Amino acid sequence: MNKEDIIASVSKQMPERRWIHTQGVMVTSRYLAEKYGEDPERAELAAIIHDVAKYWPVEEQRQYIVKHQLNCELLDYNKELWHAEIGSHVAWAQYGIEDQGIRDAIRYHTSGRAGMSLIEKIVWLADYIEPGRDFPGVEEARRLAEQSLDTAILYGLNATITILIERNRIIYPGTVTARNSLILTI
Amino acid sequence: MNKEDIIASVSKQMPERRWIHTQGVMVTSRYLAEKYGEDPERAELAAIIHDVAKYWPVEEQRQYIVKHQLNCELLDYNKELWHAEIGSHVAWAQYGIEDQGIRDAIRYHTSGRAGMSLIEKIVWLADYIEPGRDFPGVEEARRLAEQSLDTAILYGLNATITILIERNRIIYPGTVTARNSLILTI
Repeated sequence: MNKEDIIASVSKQMPERRWIHTQGVMVTSRYLAEKYGEDPERAELAAIIHDVAKYWPVEEQRQYIVKHQLNCELLDYNKELWHAEIGSHVAWAQYGIEDQGIRDAIRYHTSGRAGMSLIEKIVWLADYIEPGRDFPGVEEARRLAEQSLDTAILYGLNATITILIERNRIIYPGTVTARNSLILTI
Repeated sequence: MNKEDIIASVSKQMPERRWIHTQGVMVTSRYLAEKYGEDPERAELAAIIHDVAKYWPVEEQRQYIVKHQLNCELLDYNKELWHAEIGSHVAWAQYGIEDQGIRDAIRYHTSGRAGMSLIEKIVWLADYIEPGRDFPGVEEARRLAEQSLDTAILYGLNATITILIERNRIIYPGTVTARNSLILTI
């Protein structure tokens, strides 16, 4: 499927405000790709698809993960993690994306993981700092993004873990190993 | 080996201030055991031994873990975790403690783990709140300990994770799963 057809398919699966967010992630992914030496087309394609399943009904998301034998461990964790796993599969099964790097950038755009690739880091960070984001700390994350992908992502993962503690929510261990991995890298 | 002999052996392997800490953990473990329905003798015995290896030279700790094929994964994490794993083995190999519950209370007294037993919770919390402890939040932890072991330990684990983030230190994933497990329990 070509880019225009994928955009048409993805955009109709979410409310307008989320499509505006996705457009922000597309622009920011291209920007970071050019800045840090990734192919902007690959980064943008991952960005287009990253939230394709976010507004699917929760039960449909659960069934998709079970039916396609995706990472069922995620079903024990926050449901906000599920759409990334599904999006990666949809990219391949419905949009014909064979590029594993693009699919992994979609797959780990929420949780992160230890040893993230360049495109994974770009999409994770673009999702965190795209122009439509407005939360305490986003300006600091944008400032760090100009200096180092790793430092900016570590800042974001630390903030995410801290918020989950404050809200008494489950922390996905993969997010912690992603953070640990960056500390050992920086 | 009887209790007096174990006390003599353990106390000479650490500086006096740490033995005073251990005596605090012994008293607090007995107190929490009586309050929450555990055998005070078992809890005290775990407390006596819990820090036996804490002041061993770091290289000796590493070699002990490798030689006795203990949990080598810990060698990739903060070395403050190692002495607990070693203490559990010393309890069995040198002091003849066959009681797996006591040994696990020693083993998990720093990291915690998902699904902690009653004696594990008691020794973890006693170590955190014994009368010699003096850090921001310890009074709140002591207050919570009067109400619920789980709530007090969750408070302590959250504080531990937050401090590790602030200090840019590695977080042991087992500590996060211990915390998650308590959230699902409370």
